Amino acid sequence: MKPRSLAATTLSLALAAVLAPNVNAQSAQAIPGYTMSHKMLAKAPYTLADLESLKKTLLITDEDVRYLRMSKAILVDQTEAILDVWYGFVASTPELVVYFKNNKTGAPDAAYLGAVRKRFGQWIADTADANYDQDWLDYQYEIGLRHTTPRKNKTDRADSVPLVNFRYLSALTIPVTTTLKPFLAKKGASAADVEKMHAAWVKSVLMQTILWSHPYVREGQF
Amino acid sequence: MKPRSLAATTLSLALAAVLAPNVNAQSAQAIPGYTMSHKMLAKAPYTLADLESLKKTLLITDEDVRYLRMSKAILVDQTEAILDVWYGFVASTPELVVYFKNNKTGAPDAAYLGAVRKRFGQWIADTADANYDQDWLDYQYEIGLRHTTPRKNKTDRADSVPLVNFRYLSALTIPVTTTLKPFLAKKGASAADVEKMHAAWVKSVLMQTILWSHPYVREGQF
Repeated sequence: MKPRSLAATTLSLALAAVLAPNVNAQSAQAIPGYTMSHKMLAKAPYTLADLESLKKTLLITDEDVRYLRMSKAILVDQTEAILDVWYGFVASTPELVVYFKNNKTGAPDAAYLGAVRKRFGQWIADTADANYDQDWLDYQYEIGLRHTTPRKNKTDRADSVPLVNFRYLSALTIPVTTTLKPFLAKKGASAADVEKMHAAWVKSVLMQTILWSHPYVREGQF
Repeated sequence: MKPRSLAATTLSLALAAVLAPNVNAQSAQAIPGYTMSHKMLAKAPYTLADLESLKKTLLITDEDVRYLRMSKAILVDQTEAILDVWYGFVASTPELVVYFKNNKTGAPDAAYLGAVRKRFGQWIADTADANYDQDWLDYQYEIGLRHTTPRKNKTDRADSVPLVNFRYLSALTIPVTTTLKPFLAKKGASAADVEKMHAAWVKSVLMQTILWSHPYVREGQF
């Protein structure tokens, strides 16, 4: 790192500390299309009470929330390595990479993949935070909308396919959490804690994909 | 057990051995509404090729199929005890037991619960068999239809609510597989094999609930 860029980084960090005590939120502001807590977001069609019922069915307890939060310090500074594995899986699975296809070239759209990747990194931190408030709920609905017609591609101005098929959303719970497990184990947590963090992640990701599915589901059947 | 009933059972088992080498299929014939392989079933709207893609996304490999099949001998003679746990969970969760409500009495419908329970027991064996052929695929679609309007309640002639809400189908993957794990461990399998059987069950149940979700999903978005 060059001296000038180091100085700029130091200044930027200092400003961040002054302007925003929540470093997550501060860094997230730099991510295009990351609109958690934005006032313009639509209110989710499911309530916090619906979420509590869903959590109960998924056996998500306060202990799971504690283990999700424990995972944050372990995962956040491995974010790029985790994303490399997840993107490697998508890239090597034709059924998945097609959702990033550039309609003009027929090839995966690098700019689109890159834009989504930044939000995907933030999603790791947000999943670990497990702050299940109205802002979080509204943003889950927004994420669902962005996978479906007519909202897909709009956030990143991509020229790509108009829909991610429903069946792959909840299915991705498995590769995402299976490949996460070794990263959970890399910072010296006990095997029992790794198991519990992993189980909490499986529940949380499955819950989120169910919430994201709302726009796909027929009226009144969610 | 009385002598006469023991003799009748022995005769029945002997006949079963003569008439049907597949004891599963033989016993399944006695379950009302269990229509795997029936000719009258609609063809599933997803293909075996779609299933292969879904399996790939869910990381379901031949090893998972082997571990599912290993689980069969362990689970089948614990079927009633497993169903007791699952039914206990449903009964103690108002959000779930409502789907078995008798519209006239407002209370859970014991006959309806009992009829579903028999097929649920068979489902344990079928999930462990992991025979992913066209008959199996068509029956997954049939199961989905039975959770949605207008097919819900018809199989068991129940007078109950017209729909199981979408959001609970995939969510039930967690309680079903979490409570299954101790049963997988009860017959002396190694801890590593129990883990692998459990992981295979999580993948399989999630895959099935995704297939069951088809009738809920808007045209062309599955």
